[in-house]
Amino acid sequence: MSILVVGTVALDTVQTPFGKAKDVLGGSAAYSALAASFFGKVKLVAVVGKDFPGEFIGSLRAKGIDTKGLQIKKGKTFRWSGRYSYDLNNPETLKTELNLLSGFNPQIPDNYRNERFIFLANIDPHVQLKVLEQLKNPELVVSDTMNYWIEHQKKALKQVIKKTDILALNDAEARELSGEANLIKAAKALLRFGPRLIIIKRGEYGCSLFSRTFSFYVPAYLLESALDPTGAGDTFAGGFLGYLATCKRINESSFKKAIGFGSIMASYTVEDFSLNRLFRLKKSDVETRFKDFQRLTRF
Amino acid sequence: MSILVVGTVALDTVQTPFGKAKDVLGGSAAYSALAASFFGKVKLVAVVGKDFPGEFIGSLRAKGIDTKGLQIKKGKTFRWSGRYSYDLNNPETLKTELNLLSGFNPQIPDNYRNERFIFLANIDPHVQLKVLEQLKNPELVVSDTMNYWIEHQKKALKQVIKKTDILALNDAEARELSGEANLIKAAKALLRFGPRLIIIKRGEYGCSLFSRTFSFYVPAYLLESALDPTGAGDTFAGGFLGYLATCKRINESSFKKAIGFGSIMASYTVEDFSLNRLFRLKKSDVETRFKDFQRLTRF
Repeated sequence: MSILVVGTVALDTVQTPFGKAKDVLGGSAAYSALAASFFGKVKLVAVVGKDFPGEFIGSLRAKGIDTKGLQIKKGKTFRWSGRYSYDLNNPETLKTELNLLSGFNPQIPDNYRNERFIFLANIDPHVQLKVLEQLKNPELVVSDTMNYWIEHQKKALKQVIKKTDILALNDAEARELSGEANLIKAAKALLRFGPRLIIIKRGEYGCSLFSRTFSFYVPAYLLESALDPTGAGDTFAGGFLGYLATCKRINESSFKKAIGFGSIMASYTVEDFSLNRLFRLKKSDVETRFKDFQRLTRF
Repeated sequence: MSILVVGTVALDTVQTPFGKAKDVLGGSAAYSALAASFFGKVKLVAVVGKDFPGEFIGSLRAKGIDTKGLQIKKGKTFRWSGRYSYDLNNPETLKTELNLLSGFNPQIPDNYRNERFIFLANIDPHVQLKVLEQLKNPELVVSDTMNYWIEHQKKALKQVIKKTDILALNDAEARELSGEANLIKAAKALLRFGPRLIIIKRGEYGCSLFSRTFSFYVPAYLLESALDPTGAGDTFAGGFLGYLATCKRINESSFKKAIGFGSIMASYTVEDFSLNRLFRLKKSDVETRFKDFQRLTRF
């Protein structure tokens, strides 16, 4: 089954204790679309400016991603610049230039409107709502967000969450949105907003999944070398939904495996800057590390 | 198989955002001995002063712990006072009064000297060495330590580690002792000190086990209510070694299960102040939560 991904495609400038990357491919939709492409056909909806390097679009297409929904507009691409200290969990944002992202009106191509597996990656919840309005038959909607939208667009965000099957967010966001410090209590509160599942991402510490009937915890796949965590959460979600889209039946067991695949995709992302590691990755690498991850965590 | 536990028995005063406890039973050996007692017969070696409440000794004995190795000396019991913020991973030490702990000369009773499962809980490494010298036939030595000994008694500590089969320490201690920021690299460096296994404890984020041939990661068992994390690492180690002492054959699978049991014991500890939750705990609770933990983490 194919996957529709909506979010940002960006030019990132990132500094970590292990190196620096300037004006590289980034954005929530770029990371998640590339991660999902390891599992199925991906359709990408986003906006970039005329300044966006054609080679970046070419490399996404070369991975089989359908970019008909990627608008190329007059103006400048969204840019994000951030810096990580040795605590790779929390970047310091140095600069955010929304550029074409402000006023972005997502146009879902006609042949995308019947898509059933939808990832609303981190972007203004009004954009996420406009996407949902154009879809005829969504079966599984996964949404992500960030602290900025929790603080500034809570009403629209809550409308998105109401229409969301699976909400993925990090621990600080879960606490902020729910008003609960304890993660189990936060997840219970968020389930009351509407979703069937809440995924709480904890960076290098793994993640937890909560439904009304079961929970699931995984540690992160530890790495000997982590260079840049940017996009880890987005690749997680892309891998998660990508795997689900391959399942004949979606049940507790497939959700848990999907969390495993999401974790693996995220682990690859942080091994290099930008999407570099993902571009070099083979499907067989994913399968191998997934099996390794099962072995590493089973007792 | 029985277990010999050596370490501190203390009077703790602890403050967390959820309450306060004054002059309560604490200490690395008290926590780990009580945790291990759920799995087998425990022999406790430590020192306390005449000021130490007899009822605390009585309650340990009531749990079947052999306290013949608990010296009661003229003088004052070791006292620790600490405060936790909402980040329950790292306490601020307000006061440490070593009292009888300085100059503690551990006397291993004759009928303890053939013990084979040994936990050297956190205490001056010179004390740990003196214990090892008195043992005739140790089969599995688990050691714990803390940043203070890494900084002030590194030479003695390294001697202990050389004679240790399984070294358990938290992530900051692993980084400090190895000089490696990355946990996998830190574990590899620590394995070169001698032990067969390194356990890196990560508080509310779970823990990782490293050997020369396999690794294993578990998340922590999430709790809806965590009151006081004091002693969690010690109960972890007590549960870990306690379970191993019940195994006919000790192999990779038993080490992983032991990590699971250690994690469960730690999760109970933080549900209340001091050893209160452990005193109320039943063996059947441990079994139930262990099975729950397997289900929560398997994919």
